[in-house]
Amino acid sequence: MSASAFEGFLSTPQMLAVFGEEAIVQGMMDFEAALARAEAAVGLITPQAATAIAGVCRAELYDVPALVAASGRAGSLAIPLVKRLTETVALFDAQASQVVHWGGTSQDVIDTGMVLATRRALALIDDDLSALIAALLSLAAQHAATPVLGRTLMQPASVVSFGFKAACWAAPLVRSQQRLHAAAQRALQLQFGGAVGTLATLGEHGPAVAQHMAQQLRLPPWQGVWHTQRDDWVALGCEVGVLVGALAKFARDLSLMSQGEIGELAEPSGAGRGGSTALPHKRNPVSSMVALAAAQRVPHRVAALLGAMAQEHERGLGNWQAELAEWAGLFISAHGAVHALAEAAAGLQVHPQRMRAHIEALQGLVTAEACSTRLAAVIGKPEAQRLLEGLSRRVMDEGRHLRELVLEAVAADPRLEAGIEAGEIERLFDPDHATGAAAARTREQLARLQPLAAALAAARPFAEPASTIDDVQEMSA
Amino acid sequence: MSASAFEGFLSTPQMLAVFGEEAIVQGMMDFEAALARAEAAVGLITPQAATAIAGVCRAELYDVPALVAASGRAGSLAIPLVKRLTETVALFDAQASQVVHWGGTSQDVIDTGMVLATRRALALIDDDLSALIAALLSLAAQHAATPVLGRTLMQPASVVSFGFKAACWAAPLVRSQQRLHAAAQRALQLQFGGAVGTLATLGEHGPAVAQHMAQQLRLPPWQGVWHTQRDDWVALGCEVGVLVGALAKFARDLSLMSQGEIGELAEPSGAGRGGSTALPHKRNPVSSMVALAAAQRVPHRVAALLGAMAQEHERGLGNWQAELAEWAGLFISAHGAVHALAEAAAGLQVHPQRMRAHIEALQGLVTAEACSTRLAAVIGKPEAQRLLEGLSRRVMDEGRHLRELVLEAVAADPRLEAGIEAGEIERLFDPDHATGAAAARTREQLARLQPLAAALAAARPFAEPASTIDDVQEMSA
Amino acid sequence: MSASAFEGFLSTPQMLAVFGEEAIVQGMMDFEAALARAEAAVGLITPQAATAIAGVCRAELYDVPALVAASGRAGSLAIPLVKRLTETVALFDAQASQVVHWGGTSQDVIDTGMVLATRRALALIDDDLSALIAALLSLAAQHAATPVLGRTLMQPASVVSFGFKAACWAAPLVRSQQRLHAAAQRALQLQFGGAVGTLATLGEHGPAVAQHMAQQLRLPPWQGVWHTQRDDWVALGCEVGVLVGALAKFARDLSLMSQGEIGELAEPSGAGRGGSTALPHKRNPVSSMVALAAAQRVPHRVAALLGAMAQEHERGLGNWQAELAEWAGLFISAHGAVHALAEAAAGLQVHPQRMRAHIEALQGLVTAEACSTRLAAVIGKPEAQRLLEGLSRRVMDEGRHLRELVLEAVAADPRLEAGIEAGEIERLFDPDHATGAAAARTREQLARLQPLAAALAAARPFAEPASTIDDVQEMSA
Amino acid sequence: MSASAFEGFLSTPQMLAVFGEEAIVQGMMDFEAALARAEAAVGLITPQAATAIAGVCRAELYDVPALVAASGRAGSLAIPLVKRLTETVALFDAQASQVVHWGGTSQDVIDTGMVLATRRALALIDDDLSALIAALLSLAAQHAATPVLGRTLMQPASVVSFGFKAACWAAPLVRSQQRLHAAAQRALQLQFGGAVGTLATLGEHGPAVAQHMAQQLRLPPWQGVWHTQRDDWVALGCEVGVLVGALAKFARDLSLMSQGEIGELAEPSGAGRGGSTALPHKRNPVSSMVALAAAQRVPHRVAALLGAMAQEHERGLGNWQAELAEWAGLFISAHGAVHALAEAAAGLQVHPQRMRAHIEALQGLVTAEACSTRLAAVIGKPEAQRLLEGLSRRVMDEGRHLRELVLEAVAADPRLEAGIEAGEIERLFDPDHATGAAAARTREQLARLQPLAAALAAARPFAEPASTIDDVQEMSA
Repeated sequence: MSASAFEGFLSTPQMLAVFGEEAIVQGMMDFEAALARAEAAVGLITPQAATAIAGVCRAELYDVPALVAASGRAGSLAIPLVKRLTETVALFDAQASQVVHWGGTSQDVIDTGMVLATRRALALIDDDLSALIAALLSLAAQHAATPVLGRTLMQPASVVSFGFKAACWAAPLVRSQQRLHAAAQRALQLQFGGAVGTLATLGEHGPAVAQHMAQQLRLPPWQGVWHTQRDDWVALGCEVGVLVGALAKFARDLSLMSQGEIGELAEPSGAGRGGSTALPHKRNPVSSMVALAAAQRVPHRVAALLGAMAQEHERGLGNWQAELAEWAGLFISAHGAVHALAEAAAGLQVHPQRMRAHIEALQGLVTAEACSTRLAAVIGKPEAQRLLEGLSRRVMDEGRHLRELVLEAVAADPRLEAGIEAGEIERLFDPDHATGAAAARTREQLARLQPLAAALAAARPFAEPASTIDDVQEMSA
Repeated sequence: MSASAFEGFLSTPQMLAVFGEEAIVQGMMDFEAALARAEAAVGLITPQAATAIAGVCRAELYDVPALVAASGRAGSLAIPLVKRLTETVALFDAQASQVVHWGGTSQDVIDTGMVLATRRALALIDDDLSALIAALLSLAAQHAATPVLGRTLMQPASVVSFGFKAACWAAPLVRSQQRLHAAAQRALQLQFGGAVGTLATLGEHGPAVAQHMAQQLRLPPWQGVWHTQRDDWVALGCEVGVLVGALAKFARDLSLMSQGEIGELAEPSGAGRGGSTALPHKRNPVSSMVALAAAQRVPHRVAALLGAMAQEHERGLGNWQAELAEWAGLFISAHGAVHALAEAAAGLQVHPQRMRAHIEALQGLVTAEACSTRLAAVIGKPEAQRLLEGLSRRVMDEGRHLRELVLEAVAADPRLEAGIEAGEIERLFDPDHATGAAAARTREQLARLQPLAAALAAARPFAEPASTIDDVQEMSA
Repeated sequence: MSASAFEGFLSTPQMLAVFGEEAIVQGMMDFEAALARAEAAVGLITPQAATAIAGVCRAELYDVPALVAASGRAGSLAIPLVKRLTETVALFDAQASQVVHWGGTSQDVIDTGMVLATRRALALIDDDLSALIAALLSLAAQHAATPVLGRTLMQPASVVSFGFKAACWAAPLVRSQQRLHAAAQRALQLQFGGAVGTLATLGEHGPAVAQHMAQQLRLPPWQGVWHTQRDDWVALGCEVGVLVGALAKFARDLSLMSQGEIGELAEPSGAGRGGSTALPHKRNPVSSMVALAAAQRVPHRVAALLGAMAQEHERGLGNWQAELAEWAGLFISAHGAVHALAEAAAGLQVHPQRMRAHIEALQGLVTAEACSTRLAAVIGKPEAQRLLEGLSRRVMDEGRHLRELVLEAVAADPRLEAGIEAGEIERLFDPDHATGAAAARTREQLARLQPLAAALAAARPFAEPASTIDDVQEMSA
Repeated sequence: MSASAFEGFLSTPQMLAVFGEEAIVQGMMDFEAALARAEAAVGLITPQAATAIAGVCRAELYDVPALVAASGRAGSLAIPLVKRLTETVALFDAQASQVVHWGGTSQDVIDTGMVLATRRALALIDDDLSALIAALLSLAAQHAATPVLGRTLMQPASVVSFGFKAACWAAPLVRSQQRLHAAAQRALQLQFGGAVGTLATLGEHGPAVAQHMAQQLRLPPWQGVWHTQRDDWVALGCEVGVLVGALAKFARDLSLMSQGEIGELAEPSGAGRGGSTALPHKRNPVSSMVALAAAQRVPHRVAALLGAMAQEHERGLGNWQAELAEWAGLFISAHGAVHALAEAAAGLQVHPQRMRAHIEALQGLVTAEACSTRLAAVIGKPEAQRLLEGLSRRVMDEGRHLRELVLEAVAADPRLEAGIEAGEIERLFDPDHATGAAAARTREQLARLQPLAAALAAARPFAEPASTIDDVQEMSA
């Protein structure tokens, strides 16, 4: 049963499926199959028992909604799941049914199920993130020298280039992808400790069973239990939070530059995309909407995870359960955002004329600082500043362009006349010239980011060679 | 499609249904039906058109999952819903289909749908809250003079009574119920403003249509649009947050007093309730678990709602949508908590002997302050404090009971001998005597809380006389 | 010692002083003085002792930074404060020094000190809120019919009036002030319960002492202890949070309408206010900045308060202390926001020509929906919609105004020619006409809000007749 | 002026000083000095000018509170600071005063000032964290085989060892220290970009100046501006949040195990530490208190940072300022927590007898699962489980020890008699035996953690060789 009719439109069907009941139950089944096989590998149970158990570790054999419904009274999804699995194994092999879940505990199977789901969630995010970065770097290269207003505190400041802005959107995404890969490598760990984390039931075989399981589930070597030590796990959640923040930065600027009165950018149009039948002039920026909605929600999810870390003793009361319930929301929002923005960036409509028009509308005031700096070299900073302030006021009062007024001032002052080359002032006020520094910064960033982005896109650390369970079954066949 | 396999076990099926897709779609349909009838009432459309529209405003006629799936591309659930409703009306009455949703906007139908769902959500919470309060007040009355340790900073402090604790759990719940009723009365308002909130499409009839709609939906008189003015709505969310905090206070104490080594309280046992096959001594406090999980989650939901209030212009970009997605979670957690605790309180196992044993185990140290106060009246505060400190140290060093040591000290000091009546010291150390003040406070609280609680329980401001839509259809039949 | 160099510029010196160390210590001293006088009133201590104690309950007599520094090791500010107060009383009256803080506990004096500070904090907020509301209602009245674009999802939608927008900013502030007054009346309560909340030390006199104290401190009658029952207190915090959200809605719109390229509004300029020496065209919207910063911070403060409600037993470990530390931040941010916005609203620069220019720039597209509605009355909704869609596309393709195209279409279709009066189309496209509904809604809101706002502004429930301590001392003199 | 009288007692004077006004102003001055020297190094200004500027970049020369007070009207602390610095330089060298802050912007100096403060903050945290880890690993080694109850969902479960618990507290701290070092290496970056991030004012010299500055301030090579790209910075904040969560896990367990009725642990006592004059039996766990308070607060700080990431264009409006104001709180709480817990761990009182007593009080029930597992090897799991359930019920009903009942059962069943060796049952019930698995896990963890911890403690990546400013001045002398 859905928790909310208003969750889905802010995410993707793919991600909703990853944390859906079917998939989670399958992940838990994968744990049970791996456990049985690992115990067979070290000789704790027979190969026949392992085969019998693993053979029915398939979610489609079970009434998943009934399992979920039963989890309420039991206080844990693992309890009805292990019970039904045991009964099902017993239909075929009574002996094997006695060793189902042997040495494991509820939290082992649930946490590992979440790890497996999270790996798939990260695969979805990672692919769209690579595509988004590529699109932004392409825009940066293409528009390295396209003039656009730089704006500070939501007011026009100085000229930069649109490519510079695009590179500034891409850089934090590249870094976020790096950090996400690293955080996932630490966090995607097998959970296995038994009732109180000591693997006591398995005697001396505990660690060996754990290593076998980790290998089968393609997880890194087991380093110990993390039932109530959630640091690496929550740190991964934090990285997803930071990624969403970096996405929101792009979305915020996109929404501002797409305002009807600004019109420097527009999200791609398309069949029914953000359209409105009655208002054909209206194109709703649905990609920004989804990403900004994610940015409103995700910080609170991260806070909830952090707040749930003080878990009591060997299994928490309420906090572990809260963490479980909060976890999926992070990824559901994050994928909605990255997917929507990848689509927007790929089809982004860029309007350089509108960008230039907004610069022109400021009548050269945006160049006042650069101009002051140049004149200061001749007449000193205080006098240059006073001069420019006076001229700027005249721009606003008289409606003339600052360039003209500066040219007049230079002509009227022999020191300036002598110290400033002909054409220099015109060049200063030329938007294309003004983008020089921005273009240089953009090219530096591209040189740094492009190889990084290519390597990250190629890495695909979360991709699955094929369905885990099929692989494993073939291996054991 | 479920957002998470780990949401349901922390709530109730009833509450999950309230915010489920079917119910939300029905609430939106109720809005459309009310709109059509109201427009007929003021003569904007024909009664036939209203009947044609209202007749198909039944969620069961539609493929609800398909509507929800379509909301993603459209960026709003209202768009596919109005489209399908219009098509369906057209099957029967082409004229009527032209006035479906006339004068309304997406946010009108979605927000009002949420208001109707929220009223049902509050009805569920309110009933369980009344039951919980009644159970706690009953415990308070029964145990007004049952001695138990008062504990501060998680250390034993002085004797109170268990009834005092129960009254202290009940009081904030009574107040929360009061505040919740008041907040709901403000917040449960018809949303109706048309495209930009001015009801422009309806001309002079706008307000009259709005009043008719409010009446039909049993909502208070329309006072204007609140598309991007979310204060009353979010204030209601805050009250749900405060309620969960008040519930969590009880749950925290319950979990602490139910620890195996404390054993002063135990949640009721029952078929499969928090049990464990392997560990028959283990009874997991699942009610506390659910309530504490809610307390971990809900503050972040409230923060998300507050953070989404700065909605742009006449309809927000991302923030309104985030609020929609966050809203249900509040109620899902809150009902999980109040329902679980009502069950726990109704069947609570109280162990007065364990309470008394913990007092005894402190060998009178818990009475040191009261004793010092009494002796100070004879020998002054500084000397009395010094004396008690010395005796207390001897309690810990020699393992003797403080009562004996004080009796010896009184006997040894003629001033004390004269100033303290025989039997007074024994009385001070008697746990039953020590509960005197606590029992008095408990009775004061009960006298204040019982009539309030009774009135609140009787009010049932969220109860529906019968299915809204049926009523309305009968009225119009 | 300041917690941060970057706190002050987002608030006001007045509010920083309210929660400063001096003021908090004075509030705690006020508690101790009231306690002594109340105990004298019921005969528990002598009037001389009360006078001796109250006489030195003046923060300026103490080394406040030293008290605060000592609070670290002690784990509570009350411990060093009561110690130093006792020593100081003893300098004058050894007997009296034995009854300092008699029957009180650390939490009593600290919580009550915070209540007194909070009342002063609310007085500051309330006054600026009244001023802000008055300024916005005045703008609403003045600009009830000034056309401006209504915008949804950050895109132009339809024409509203600037007065409508101002009324929509004011309405949630009026409601927030109402709710704040109500919440404060509940929350500003004397804290008094003694060690474990039962007033045991004071025997039968407990409640009477409490009532005397409440009266002296001008607080409502004592209803019992709330050491670990923080619901009314946190509910007040929530209302401050909602207020900040309502302020942020105005600030968000203000920042958007003040963008250089929009220029419909500008914050007042003034000596150094948001200016920039180098960029004379630049005026930073510092009021919006402060209010938006508050909106970024306050939801998390509220969440922290809610999260700290599950306080253990009779005094919390960590959570109460966290609440204390979080509390002031709410008010520091809120006053920064309301003060800045009151200043901005009072001197707001409104540019109706820019508002009109943005409407004109849309070449009538903003009227497409109204136009379609009108034509639909003649040719039916489907045909009218198709027609307008086609014409709207031509507006964008051909750069002509929609009005002309519609006039041509009407002329070309005999049904329309007959069904539409001469001049009707021109009127539809007249921005002033288009504000009709908005102006009506504005006037309705003003009629409702003005008397409410006047009553709230007159109430001043937090104003102090004069310095509490002076009053009380005069009373007792 | 302090933001709150209740901040300090939850932190340390050292950390409060790091983010105090004096220190922040000095950090900003260090930026200005480094900027001047770097510009001299590349020939943009004269060495004399650089010396003149750097010579007065000393906070003690300025009225710091006046600077902070002026930041309110200006909307930024950098504006009055640069103004006063310029005036001061002009007193000595008019020429030099013209190039103060040349090419920099407010955000450059403020962000870099915060970076320098944060490095000092991390140094404080890192040292106490190393000490805490060392203390916990030492406890783990000492108590690897000390039996204690493992508890799940706050109920007794099975026997573990106290050393196992200590290792489980240490492991996440070691990992957090690793992650913190890595995150700081990324985040502690020079901020330098000029007005809109392009270094336009410095022409082709921009990057070279940046590299010189980074070197002087001992920061990693400059990689570009991060004015509105806060990902690495906020990711560092997240790691502080995760660290506090890991600390809170230890604090939670410590507070639970220190409850009067449990008494397995006690925080060290000492002069005035958590003591109470009236209640000598009471020792308040002030270290837990401080750490748990931090855990209540810090998640919300992290959420605020994440929520402030969507900063507009080239400088944010409200969000950057909010981030600045929130940042210090993270470190203030974190150092309070780690310092308090390091003290607690170093002097921790461990009571193995109490631990053993709680195991004994369960009359063997805690061994039921292990026992069932052993018998299952002989009679199968279903029969063994049924047998143990029955016996366990008898333990609770008859008050006998499970060991006796199992021995009787074994004696009564020839299969068990034959399949179970003499002494095996006794051994199972021996707490020391039961710790075998826990001790093994503990030793594994110690082997892994000890070298890691030693390397991390030796690294001290945040230590300053000496006062930065002195060093740099010597270099330039």
